[in-house]
Amino acid sequence: MDELPLYRRLAEHYLAAIRAGSLAQGERMPSVRALMRLHGVSLSTALQVCRELERQGWLEARPRSGYFVRRPRRAVLPSVEEPSVEEPSVALPPDPAQYVGIHARVSDFVLRGQAHPIQVNLSGARGAPELYPSQQLKNAAIRALRQDPDLLVRVAPPGGNARFRAALAKRAMASGIVCSPEEVTITHGCIEALNLALRAVARPGDTIAVESPTYYGLFQVLESLGLRALEIPTSASRGISVDALELAIRTYGNIKAVVVVPHLQNPLGAVLPESKKKRLVELCEQSGIALIEDDTYGELIESETPLPTLKALDKTGNVIYCASLHKTLAPGMRLGWMLGGRWHTRAALLKYAQTRYNEEWPQIAAAEFIGSGAFERHLRRLRTALRGQRERMAEAVAAYFPEGTRLTMPNGGPTLWLELPERRSSKALFDVAIRDGILLVPGSLFSNSDRFEPFLRLSCGAPHSKEVDGAIRRLGRMVERLPAAR
Amino acid sequence: MDELPLYRRLAEHYLAAIRAGSLAQGERMPSVRALMRLHGVSLSTALQVCRELERQGWLEARPRSGYFVRRPRRAVLPSVEEPSVEEPSVALPPDPAQYVGIHARVSDFVLRGQAHPIQVNLSGARGAPELYPSQQLKNAAIRALRQDPDLLVRVAPPGGNARFRAALAKRAMASGIVCSPEEVTITHGCIEALNLALRAVARPGDTIAVESPTYYGLFQVLESLGLRALEIPTSASRGISVDALELAIRTYGNIKAVVVVPHLQNPLGAVLPESKKKRLVELCEQSGIALIEDDTYGELIESETPLPTLKALDKTGNVIYCASLHKTLAPGMRLGWMLGGRWHTRAALLKYAQTRYNEEWPQIAAAEFIGSGAFERHLRRLRTALRGQRERMAEAVAAYFPEGTRLTMPNGGPTLWLELPERRSSKALFDVAIRDGILLVPGSLFSNSDRFEPFLRLSCGAPHSKEVDGAIRRLGRMVERLPAAR
Repeated sequence: MDELPLYRRLAEHYLAAIRAGSLAQGERMPSVRALMRLHGVSLSTALQVCRELERQGWLEARPRSGYFVRRPRRAVLPSVEEPSVEEPSVALPPDPAQYVGIHARVSDFVLRGQAHPIQVNLSGARGAPELYPSQQLKNAAIRALRQDPDLLVRVAPPGGNARFRAALAKRAMASGIVCSPEEVTITHGCIEALNLALRAVARPGDTIAVESPTYYGLFQVLESLGLRALEIPTSASRGISVDALELAIRTYGNIKAVVVVPHLQNPLGAVLPESKKKRLVELCEQSGIALIEDDTYGELIESETPLPTLKALDKTGNVIYCASLHKTLAPGMRLGWMLGGRWHTRAALLKYAQTRYNEEWPQIAAAEFIGSGAFERHLRRLRTALRGQRERMAEAVAAYFPEGTRLTMPNGGPTLWLELPERRSSKALFDVAIRDGILLVPGSLFSNSDRFEPFLRLSCGAPHSKEVDGAIRRLGRMVERLPAAR
Repeated sequence: MDELPLYRRLAEHYLAAIRAGSLAQGERMPSVRALMRLHGVSLSTALQVCRELERQGWLEARPRSGYFVRRPRRAVLPSVEEPSVEEPSVALPPDPAQYVGIHARVSDFVLRGQAHPIQVNLSGARGAPELYPSQQLKNAAIRALRQDPDLLVRVAPPGGNARFRAALAKRAMASGIVCSPEEVTITHGCIEALNLALRAVARPGDTIAVESPTYYGLFQVLESLGLRALEIPTSASRGISVDALELAIRTYGNIKAVVVVPHLQNPLGAVLPESKKKRLVELCEQSGIALIEDDTYGELIESETPLPTLKALDKTGNVIYCASLHKTLAPGMRLGWMLGGRWHTRAALLKYAQTRYNEEWPQIAAAEFIGSGAFERHLRRLRTALRGQRERMAEAVAAYFPEGTRLTMPNGGPTLWLELPERRSSKALFDVAIRDGILLVPGSLFSNSDRFEPFLRLSCGAPHSKEVDGAIRRLGRMVERLPAAR
């Protein structure tokens, strides 16, 4: 048998100590410096030892404190509070023409979701159609068509419709952003804005820091552009670890940007505290790496006043702001936008080369709606409906899922993040559930690693009907029958 | 002063011979083998000598005959009949984050077009709004909105609206394509389809063969994706030179795809003869390079029966078909589609990662229209209108432009391609014209080289009004006043 590498042998040694109880649960693991001294190994090897044990689930990292032997879980929040920085999962940049990473996972997920008859779809990160103002939007669209006879046969204006851009710039002011309508670039959803932002600041082979866990759409974008994802630990209560990001920036030379969802992070639901927002903006500015803000869910936060976006704290144009009306106003309209900051011109040219300018028609309808008081009233109703649905779903999970299940309670948004007890596999749950007509998103889609296999995301976008309640009850029973991983 | 490289010194030598008349116009340049023997240089140096003289406009290549000193021009067609294969214009793949090539030219063009008040816009490669069925489309759109209350608030279906995909698959049958609706991927215009096709088959640094001249939008896409363009000579009467493409494939190892506009090529208006289509499809299949067909203008050809597309001749899935309704039905709707052939799944995943699925609303309206007889009737009217406008514009150019001006007479479409006499600069013409409120597209936007500086593209998409006629007359006078380049 091949001899194990040094770090694996040391990891085995400490694992034996943990199993024997000589390193008890909750106890501090010897520091990285202590390991270096004790075993005469390099910093890199000492770090690998800790990371390996963390990867296996035996250690957890705490900011500014070091590694600790994992405690049995009791709290409500998932346990991935502040693990260490995860290295990129591939040594070479993925070949954009041959990618088989997250795309394979996602396409397997998507194709199986399409192949099975689904009775209860708990996979979407948006509200059900009945939560959106279909009638008012339809009327606005019909008015737009009637008022402008050439709308469908005239080429669309550069950058987007002027009134829509002005309405968005005005709304952005509420979250502290000062921008002119000309700085707004209209895109096909937030996902196109993210594509353009990443293409503007990075090139294939570059590394992009992302929250971990983060939504699989972002991994897809990175992988399809030949970019490497560096996963930065992110907690459900405090958002991305700026310490870990700082360490990552010092450790890896090729980080070109960091993508952050500061408000209702997907899937954790985290909201970044304002002090952290400031540190993040400053750190990125000082380190010369672009900060890409995805504010898709910002308007869904339960808050008296709008929270400042990262862009609002940006003084130098180093923040690229991306957002959309897909979750807040109209899931059928694909209206996104971006503020490119110092990359505005480049992003606008890339937009032109990628899909040309957006058709004007939906923009006019949306401009009318978001420029009126109707949008605020709709948002209040939407937030209230989602809160009720989140609470009902959380109660159902508490009632039907086995003891030890953990759950986020985010302050807004259409999803919950669950951790199954005893590291049961959400992939296995997905397999059983889909045969019963229930679609959920397994945790493994939210990272390039397998770290989130015991986690899953549930949508509470639809009203908590009997069918939804029944599905949660059946899911609970399925979880009970799954084998514990340890 | 630094010594010139060997090939430049030899080029100077032959240039002196041409200027002295010892190598007369129309005479054959010594062959590459003769140059190698005469000067004791390598094949590569000998080729560089000829290419340099060709680049400077002193030589022209004729297939299977060698290089000839350029003759004074007489014919009606532009003189770029079959020059030799142009090498990629950059030695290294362009840095997608730092590109300054065609993007700089195009953005200069676009920004200046937006900065000046334009009275007569002769830049668009599409019909004026009045040539499209705005009323019928508007009614179809309103019906779609009324019939389906959740249309704007429900997430769009994967791949596109089923009826629209079925209607497109049915129409494709008319041009000999056999495909199922599920093979159709709906995109944001043909430009997104081209982006996806190129991303599916190639990766940054790869070489893509393109027609020369070709439309600047394609160069932008290539450059923004970090791909290199290899320009293959293309004639207004016979389309792309398949001989030159074959030579290029043998010469350069890294060609991953060729992009061809077989019907009403932009800007030449060329239609590829059927025998050439067959050879092209076979050559690409045998050489293992993808054939990307851009059929944006196919429906505008003046022809009793639809001509077969390249895709119709494809037996193995090696052709990716891209098209759009932007020029034929509705310039304001951005409806494109593609048949990904053997790259269907990959292209569909990239589409999802780039902009998600298209909104359903315009698709339903377009499906109703193109599924009815109204589309055929509209196309007939559009072709007739464009023919009249092309003829009026050609007459105006013949009447007002100086002798020696040459002009294509394409068999359809919204543009004409002009060559100015005595190599006068279209860039200089652009500068003078825009100050007079006239926007045209200079030839230098259709190549990475300066080969087409004496050429320009004129739109005859709008009815030939007094204003248009007056603009052509003024342009003619401006051309007369431009200095001849030789």
